[in-house]
Amino acid sequence: MVAGRGLYVGRFQPFHLGHLHAVRKILNEVEEIVLVIGSAQYSHDINNPFTTGERLVMIREALLDDKIDLRRVWLVPVPDVHLHMMWVAALEGYTPRFVTVYSNEALTRRLFTEAGYMVKNIPFYDRKVCSSTELRQRMVNGKTWEKYVPKKVAIFIKETNGVNRLRDLSKSDKA
Amino acid sequence: MVAGRGLYVGRFQPFHLGHLHAVRKILNEVEEIVLVIGSAQYSHDINNPFTTGERLVMIREALLDDKIDLRRVWLVPVPDVHLHMMWVAALEGYTPRFVTVYSNEALTRRLFTEAGYMVKNIPFYDRKVCSSTELRQRMVNGKTWEKYVPKKVAIFIKETNGVNRLRDLSKSDKA
Amino acid sequence: MVAGRGLYVGRFQPFHLGHLHAVRKILNEVEEIVLVIGSAQYSHDINNPFTTGERLVMIREALLDDKIDLRRVWLVPVPDVHLHMMWVAALEGYTPRFVTVYSNEALTRRLFTEAGYMVKNIPFYDRKVCSSTELRQRMVNGKTWEKYVPKKVAIFIKETNGVNRLRDLSKSDKA
Amino acid sequence: MVAGRGLYVGRFQPFHLGHLHAVRKILNEVEEIVLVIGSAQYSHDINNPFTTGERLVMIREALLDDKIDLRRVWLVPVPDVHLHMMWVAALEGYTPRFVTVYSNEALTRRLFTEAGYMVKNIPFYDRKVCSSTELRQRMVNGKTWEKYVPKKVAIFIKETNGVNRLRDLSKSDKA
Amino acid sequence: MVAGRGLYVGRFQPFHLGHLHAVRKILNEVEEIVLVIGSAQYSHDINNPFTTGERLVMIREALLDDKIDLRRVWLVPVPDVHLHMMWVAALEGYTPRFVTVYSNEALTRRLFTEAGYMVKNIPFYDRKVCSSTELRQRMVNGKTWEKYVPKKVAIFIKETNGVNRLRDLSKSDKA
Amino acid sequence: MVAGRGLYVGRFQPFHLGHLHAVRKILNEVEEIVLVIGSAQYSHDINNPFTTGERLVMIREALLDDKIDLRRVWLVPVPDVHLHMMWVAALEGYTPRFVTVYSNEALTRRLFTEAGYMVKNIPFYDRKVCSSTELRQRMVNGKTWEKYVPKKVAIFIKETNGVNRLRDLSKSDKA
Repeated sequence: MVAGRGLYVGRFQPFHLGHLHAVRKILNEVEEIVLVIGSAQYSHDINNPFTTGERLVMIREALLDDKIDLRRVWLVPVPDVHLHMMWVAALEGYTPRFVTVYSNEALTRRLFTEAGYMVKNIPFYDRKVCSSTELRQRMVNGKTWEKYVPKKVAIFIKETNGVNRLRDLSKSDKA
Repeated sequence: MVAGRGLYVGRFQPFHLGHLHAVRKILNEVEEIVLVIGSAQYSHDINNPFTTGERLVMIREALLDDKIDLRRVWLVPVPDVHLHMMWVAALEGYTPRFVTVYSNEALTRRLFTEAGYMVKNIPFYDRKVCSSTELRQRMVNGKTWEKYVPKKVAIFIKETNGVNRLRDLSKSDKA
Repeated sequence: MVAGRGLYVGRFQPFHLGHLHAVRKILNEVEEIVLVIGSAQYSHDINNPFTTGERLVMIREALLDDKIDLRRVWLVPVPDVHLHMMWVAALEGYTPRFVTVYSNEALTRRLFTEAGYMVKNIPFYDRKVCSSTELRQRMVNGKTWEKYVPKKVAIFIKETNGVNRLRDLSKSDKA
Repeated sequence: MVAGRGLYVGRFQPFHLGHLHAVRKILNEVEEIVLVIGSAQYSHDINNPFTTGERLVMIREALLDDKIDLRRVWLVPVPDVHLHMMWVAALEGYTPRFVTVYSNEALTRRLFTEAGYMVKNIPFYDRKVCSSTELRQRMVNGKTWEKYVPKKVAIFIKETNGVNRLRDLSKSDKA
Repeated sequence: MVAGRGLYVGRFQPFHLGHLHAVRKILNEVEEIVLVIGSAQYSHDINNPFTTGERLVMIREALLDDKIDLRRVWLVPVPDVHLHMMWVAALEGYTPRFVTVYSNEALTRRLFTEAGYMVKNIPFYDRKVCSSTELRQRMVNGKTWEKYVPKKVAIFIKETNGVNRLRDLSKSDKA
Repeated sequence: MVAGRGLYVGRFQPFHLGHLHAVRKILNEVEEIVLVIGSAQYSHDINNPFTTGERLVMIREALLDDKIDLRRVWLVPVPDVHLHMMWVAALEGYTPRFVTVYSNEALTRRLFTEAGYMVKNIPFYDRKVCSSTELRQRMVNGKTWEKYVPKKVAIFIKETNGVNRLRDLSKSDKA
């Protein structure tokens, strides 16, 4: 394992098994993970149904249930700035110092590469289903989604009626 | 009639007969209506052609022409905040205290329901034509629109060359 | 009386007898007044204790109690933009078209004069006490303030415990 | 101990022994603490010298060194919204659900009280020195400050040359 | 040639031969051109790949290579305000005073016409290819684009690996 | 002379002889200067009386009158972001690439030093009078200011009645 911290940015709408898998992979490679909850200011829209508070709970319960030591995880909400030329600086300001960036997202990879960081890919885990977009679509359409998220996430979404919220949002002109 | 105020939020681009009908319905049920002109900061784009000032004039002239007592109406422009988790709080800050929310819009209904308000539907009035989206489309395409808005609204839009503005905006890459 | 509308901008924290006096003066000179509630997004700080909703209620009740016809008054909340080069344009966008600007405030006078508007002074009414700053100070210090505001304003502030809120805010490091 | 979570908001510029004392007190009363790092978007000014990332490290190391179980602590950065009418809603959106608010700050107390929360005071701990304002002043003036912050905080500030940064900022016209 | 300045607004993503042609045309008609680099805050997205700094370099090198006298050109970045009612005021604030507006863009023409400016069309130059949208598409797809931009622009984009950046951005979910 | 560009950031409210002196010094050391007009969005307040457009005219006329070759000067307005952790990134995005930063301002020096830039001081030129703050004060108080600014700046301020504007702003509660 390499000393230092690895950055992993996502919106986690919701946090699924692919995300959990990535967290484990990264923790095999670096001492600590900085898990950034991006687009932190958004919620209640079709692409961002859950608030940051709800995402914090889902993610942390999933990590704990997976026996991941919280002392190795920094869970940090960061609001979007929308000005890409400042995005790396914003992340550097909100987070503990990190040395490696883990991302498959083209923009994130490009921005951190231009800024001089080492950027690594994350091996995919059942990509076809374990995509938040796909899972939100399944929730709206009444298809199976529960088995693609950590058990604690499924419980939380059910207890808070998250699927109903998402369905309502899917009918909105505005969300 | 129930004591207290009812909230009714719209963009009113433009204010049409369905909106006027809804105002009358609501005034049959509650003492006062809080009529919020949403997206108040926007104008001169294809979905929001009219400024807040223009919308204020159109709505108020239509209400007066319909013999509605202004003392029962609060006409309040509110800019969008885009952060849905704060939208109810923003509306509470900009308006007199209200008890009931009237809306058919899924996001609005969801947010106020989560915040604990009583939310009611508005009976539709000739929904197919009396939709602002449909009316803007008709203006752009040179079809009949005048008979679906209050007389005073039609006069205002004509006097201010509103249809020409909308047509110009419909040609823009940016609006 | 001159045809057209007169613009009158204030924060009205709170609306006092001097403001009411100015409204009457302006209504003697022009057909309609556009009463802008400025800094509409602020509340709960020592200089802006009341929300826009509270200010709307205070002002409208004072006007009605003074037998002012609401059909001659446009009561329009406008958030600050803080970019002075855009302030006139913002006000033009939020309000019905106006021809004269009434203000004693140096910045407002300067901006509207540079934009080519006719700008008029407002004769002062008991300036020493009828200043919102002075009245907020009196509220905090437990001195008389009630007789310097319209009766309905005093009642509203008392019923909503406005003085306690202001006192709390005066103790804050942040407000 | 009461079930549920307690909210504790601060800027922690820097995190001192009084803050640590408050965290312990709150953890005696409720199951979990939601520790909000406020003004998260600010850094490098005289009142907010440290970034959110730096504050996260300082706080977490102090908590761990004090044998506090991270599973009982939610450490959540939240940017200021500056619109007080939306502040409670913003905090509710960024955090896990909480039932009690711990604060001595007048504005925070007022806003959460108006929103219907139970608000409790925090017993002060050596208030005269254990104030972030006082400690920043001591750093600028070259007086003792180390013994008023947790040991790990002192080490971090020294290793990152925090005092030099603060002194530079204190000379700036802009910070 | 008419005394005074002409305004010409574009995003110049990238600056192509049609833009250069327009600059020459305008300089035949007015003494000085105010060349506004719009959407100045954006970069690193599929429609706005280049930063303002990069655009400044590309445009200035192209003008100098074309023997255009810099004393006749004001090159001014202006960030979007997104509130169209304030856009003319924003441009007036950021630029030297101008008398004529050159634009083929419907929204720009409409806003400046409503504000009382003289607005002129720009004769097109090989419109089919000399469109920034078309050129970005060609870059992504590996088709010829170099001959449609000034020589210096092509060199700059190659030296800075601009095409690779654009291709990366085209794969992003977010850009 | 060293190859590359030097960055020089100021608000230039107004541009005075000390600024001109600094520009000449920097042009003795580096090939090109990037002259950033900071706080570009502000005007019409007591500390920022002039718009960006007015500052552009004043500075450029002073440079030309001083026989400075515009091909060696990049004059770039940049709006404040207020988030210091992003300020270096914002400047990097708005400007051509630079290697050295010239500044006497403590915050600017600190931020660019932390970002790894070479930062140099600017030798002062009659500091006591050649300060924009001092000059604005002199304008308000009717004292001599003309001889401390470039001749073209003095002419511009007189022709545009700049001193009257500043005096009006100095009387405002809001500016």
